[in-house]
Amino acid sequence: MINITLPDGSVRQYEKGVSSLDIAKSISEGLARKVIAASVDGQVWDSTRPIEKDAAVKLLTWTDKEGKNTFWHSSAHLMAEAVESLFPGVKFWVGPALEQGGFYYDMDLGDRKITEEDLLSLEKKMNELAKQNNVFVRKQVPKAEAIQFFTEKGDEYKLDLLQNLNDGEITFYTQGGFTDLCRGPHIPATSLIKAIKLTNIAGAYWKGDQNNKQLTRIYGITFPTQKELDEYLAMLEEAKKRDHRKLGKELGIYTMDDDVGQGLILWMPNGTVIIEELEKLAKETEEAGGYKRVVTPHIAKESMYITSGHLPYYADSMYPPMEVDGEKYYLKSMNCPHHHKIFKAEPKSYRDLPYRIAEYGTVYRYEQSGELFGLMRVRCLHMNDAHIYCTRTQFADEFRAVNEMYQKYFRIFGIEKYVMRLSLHSPDKLGKKYVNEPELWKETEEMVRQVLIESNIPYVEVQDEAAFYGPKIDVQIYSVIGREFTLATNQVDFSQGRSFKLEYTTPDNQTDIPLIIHRAPLGTHERFIGFLLEHYAGKLPLWLAPLQVKVLPISDKFQDYALSVVAKLRKEGIRAEVDDRQEKIGKKIRDTELMKVPYMLVVGEKEMTDEAVSVRRQGKGDLGSKSVAEFLIDAVAEIKERRE
Amino acid sequence: MINITLPDGSVRQYEKGVSSLDIAKSISEGLARKVIAASVDGQVWDSTRPIEKDAAVKLLTWTDKEGKNTFWHSSAHLMAEAVESLFPGVKFWVGPALEQGGFYYDMDLGDRKITEEDLLSLEKKMNELAKQNNVFVRKQVPKAEAIQFFTEKGDEYKLDLLQNLNDGEITFYTQGGFTDLCRGPHIPATSLIKAIKLTNIAGAYWKGDQNNKQLTRIYGITFPTQKELDEYLAMLEEAKKRDHRKLGKELGIYTMDDDVGQGLILWMPNGTVIIEELEKLAKETEEAGGYKRVVTPHIAKESMYITSGHLPYYADSMYPPMEVDGEKYYLKSMNCPHHHKIFKAEPKSYRDLPYRIAEYGTVYRYEQSGELFGLMRVRCLHMNDAHIYCTRTQFADEFRAVNEMYQKYFRIFGIEKYVMRLSLHSPDKLGKKYVNEPELWKETEEMVRQVLIESNIPYVEVQDEAAFYGPKIDVQIYSVIGREFTLATNQVDFSQGRSFKLEYTTPDNQTDIPLIIHRAPLGTHERFIGFLLEHYAGKLPLWLAPLQVKVLPISDKFQDYALSVVAKLRKEGIRAEVDDRQEKIGKKIRDTELMKVPYMLVVGEKEMTDEAVSVRRQGKGDLGSKSVAEFLIDAVAEIKERRE
Repeated sequence: MINITLPDGSVRQYEKGVSSLDIAKSISEGLARKVIAASVDGQVWDSTRPIEKDAAVKLLTWTDKEGKNTFWHSSAHLMAEAVESLFPGVKFWVGPALEQGGFYYDMDLGDRKITEEDLLSLEKKMNELAKQNNVFVRKQVPKAEAIQFFTEKGDEYKLDLLQNLNDGEITFYTQGGFTDLCRGPHIPATSLIKAIKLTNIAGAYWKGDQNNKQLTRIYGITFPTQKELDEYLAMLEEAKKRDHRKLGKELGIYTMDDDVGQGLILWMPNGTVIIEELEKLAKETEEAGGYKRVVTPHIAKESMYITSGHLPYYADSMYPPMEVDGEKYYLKSMNCPHHHKIFKAEPKSYRDLPYRIAEYGTVYRYEQSGELFGLMRVRCLHMNDAHIYCTRTQFADEFRAVNEMYQKYFRIFGIEKYVMRLSLHSPDKLGKKYVNEPELWKETEEMVRQVLIESNIPYVEVQDEAAFYGPKIDVQIYSVIGREFTLATNQVDFSQGRSFKLEYTTPDNQTDIPLIIHRAPLGTHERFIGFLLEHYAGKLPLWLAPLQVKVLPISDKFQDYALSVVAKLRKEGIRAEVDDRQEKIGKKIRDTELMKVPYMLVVGEKEMTDEAVSVRRQGKGDLGSKSVAEFLIDAVAEIKERRE
Repeated sequence: MINITLPDGSVRQYEKGVSSLDIAKSISEGLARKVIAASVDGQVWDSTRPIEKDAAVKLLTWTDKEGKNTFWHSSAHLMAEAVESLFPGVKFWVGPALEQGGFYYDMDLGDRKITEEDLLSLEKKMNELAKQNNVFVRKQVPKAEAIQFFTEKGDEYKLDLLQNLNDGEITFYTQGGFTDLCRGPHIPATSLIKAIKLTNIAGAYWKGDQNNKQLTRIYGITFPTQKELDEYLAMLEEAKKRDHRKLGKELGIYTMDDDVGQGLILWMPNGTVIIEELEKLAKETEEAGGYKRVVTPHIAKESMYITSGHLPYYADSMYPPMEVDGEKYYLKSMNCPHHHKIFKAEPKSYRDLPYRIAEYGTVYRYEQSGELFGLMRVRCLHMNDAHIYCTRTQFADEFRAVNEMYQKYFRIFGIEKYVMRLSLHSPDKLGKKYVNEPELWKETEEMVRQVLIESNIPYVEVQDEAAFYGPKIDVQIYSVIGREFTLATNQVDFSQGRSFKLEYTTPDNQTDIPLIIHRAPLGTHERFIGFLLEHYAGKLPLWLAPLQVKVLPISDKFQDYALSVVAKLRKEGIRAEVDDRQEKIGKKIRDTELMKVPYMLVVGEKEMTDEAVSVRRQGKGDLGSKSVAEFLIDAVAEIKERRE
């Protein structure tokens, strides 16, 4: 008999060789039907794999991230089986699950080109194979046997993969007539896959190297129910309409240019209005929170980043250096070292703490060109950054205040779903990925955990995702169509205070080192504006809209009146323009709707006589007539309160 | 007889061999006494040098820049004569006049160290020699003779200078007992020098190379009257008190750091307030002027700067490149190319022009480390930049509007003295320093000249100081103590529109290239804030002051009342704090005065009872009691109107 510890802490006894699926069945048949895989002592296993010794077991279902990953990875195998049966002779490279959902498989189809029609045939075949409810069978094989198997098949791709594997590590998985080299795990059997959609065909160089052969990559996604697939496809359709790259171009938000460089955003006038409104919000919020502002250069010497630890811990994400006066200068990838220097510029006492300094600092990070994506993955980031230098006793209050600031912002932007991830270090990477201070890691991780628990903030813990100088909270937010964005971080840093020899005088005239909180509630302009464009489908709330009001004279005769209305609006700080084109009013309204301007004020004879405007709201149509004065009061209030 | 053309265009006849001094005498004896040198066909000559053929002559006096330069260079010779008479065996290197006024001479005094006392003896000797009224005698000598002269003297320094001179180019100047190798020109005789001050002793490596021997450098300044020297020394004393580097540190405006790098400013919280107020002013002004704002990255690819012409024309002022993805990226030294890309991002028609885009863009320029100086010469500049794309017919109005913007700013900052310099190209440097378009240079220079003339703006023209893409206006402003600062530029650009293939559709559906105006009325934060600190001696006007009001309770008992006053002030956007230290009120007032906080509000029993404050103005003392409400109204108005 072996002892199985379940996530609630309860311990059950089972016979040696029991599988997770057996354990599930022993709890309930309903649960067993949902089990996709299991975490056994922290490792994801096939639910059918025998457990030979005492272990902590967590059953994984579709609601777990690892459950979804296993489901999609098994779906990739199912697709491969379908491909092999329709296109014999195909050779496969790798077929992973994707972070953003779904899976792909890269394959060598010889001279054959896959078409959209082929995708339909493949889907059909996959559905057939799924219904057969073939089980996934795991088999450990000696390396020699594996090599022989793929040599006979003439499969140079799997042989290449085998080169990097050791004897004893090699497993085959077989479902139905398809066998693959794979470390697993997999779902118990194919019939769990109830809904299938192959979404895309692309080319992909073998191993990502453009000197290699181009393989065919087929993307797909699968679900345990048809309903979930339908919802997903509807969301995808909506997301396409809301794509920030499409809206960014249509609304004149941003552009990029080959001569400037990849991942470098040029903010056009409309985008700059959004930037300035966000900065205004941040400045107001931070001023009320006792922050002071600073401005720092975008470069610094190598010595700075050696002190900070960015070199070597963060070197891969930095731009390469410039040689100036015989010294190396780097573009800053974070603002912290510069802020530390400002802390240090004048002597500090406990009376100066907490010392909070904020900057919309622009940082440069080297992302692989293949990773760049619209505003979401860029190389130049305008960051809503600040650093709080505080004592240990001040820490909890300061960290809590930052979390409250996040929540304030979520309310303003109508972000109803969010998750805080407490990212912890990984003890086996101390001195490599993380500064080598095991005790301080433990202490600060516990401090942060306590604040979250006391604040009743829902959170999840993840291993091995901390910053190199301390634990952090990553905030994941969801747009109204349910897409996930990693927005911002709130980090504690016990390391840089010492590295930079920061200190303050204590009440008893000793010196101590401050703790540092790194925080960026609005993340970067790039990602946050990308999120907002999708979240609002480009229909930004009045206070954020680049153009807030367009006045539409029904004919030339009312041009002057329209201009006088615009003048009054502008005097109150409202961004307003006249549509002075020689167009019919219907066309003017349609064009203004397309540009997603919140208010259209139609003016003609009656409006001019009454000093009034006929108000239309974007997407809502006619709201009736109002006096100019009344419209002004309402609009100013809507802007001031930052109503959604 | 030869014809001499004077600056007013009149032509007079003189005998061949006449000197400029003779010409002056023929006009008036008073004028002749003031003549220092003369410009003969554009070259500065000794006023005593015979003119052998028809020439355009301008007599130079102390009021001319070239006059002052000649005066100070002759003073360097006078100092050398004094040094040689007191310290025989001294060898001289070079002794130029200085751009900022005065002169120095570098010399090898063997093992002797010059002391402050020596400077007094030298001044005394110089005064003696000046009174002797020795004339400066120019003598052209063959190279062989010059070499022999200095070889006999054992003077390796002058022999080194001779290496680079050709036969026929070598002149000696002698006054009294001192002879020097010198191309001149010089003043007629030493007695013009009436007031002498030797200001400083420094070490200077021979030829600026630290592997060479260190020479002694003596600095001095001279004037034609004692009164001017006295005024100069008083100004210097005042300037020392107003030194922006001293004030910048005392008032917590900015700092620099070795790990960040030379010439890179870290703006501390107080400096950042000034930055944000200046940006607010600029944004308001530019919004009213029809500008839109943009935000662009700080780097771009080499190809961008080849197109713009910064490479090669401006390469020396740029930071060296970084290698990214096999391409060269440069830190931007100007914002224009990025703005051009924004212009180009969407098609433009004549209806979109003038298209004005503004950015407080941060640029990086490589200045030699020896040139760096506080906020005045830096490597990272935050520039009040904008570009106006317009048609030729719009040009004059746009250029005039920019000049008017300058003048608006001058009024706000109480800048009463300013000079606009129209900087022109130099035809012999076309294709090297300037783009090779002789016709366009002529045309645009004339356009700018016409705007200045029509606007009745006083200006001077200078050759060979244009931007590489077109003529420009440099604005020189003077602080209240009379020091000159080059603030800003207003440039016309006929070149980059073509290089970047910018175009717009004309009313008749053709395409044309816009003219571009580059303008930066507030220059850079760095230089302008440096100027403001000196101009106001750190006592910034209320609207610019980092801390505007300090409330000083006369004892702890009134702490809460003081806090309630601060809360009211902050609600109105006034930057206010309480001095909550356990100090006597006298000490609180003194400390607040030192920090140059505009208003101090003293509160005690009476003020608390009356809901009032006792108002003190920095530097002006007690202004009597006011109700809190009344103070608020007055202060808000003072800030809003940006009163000086």
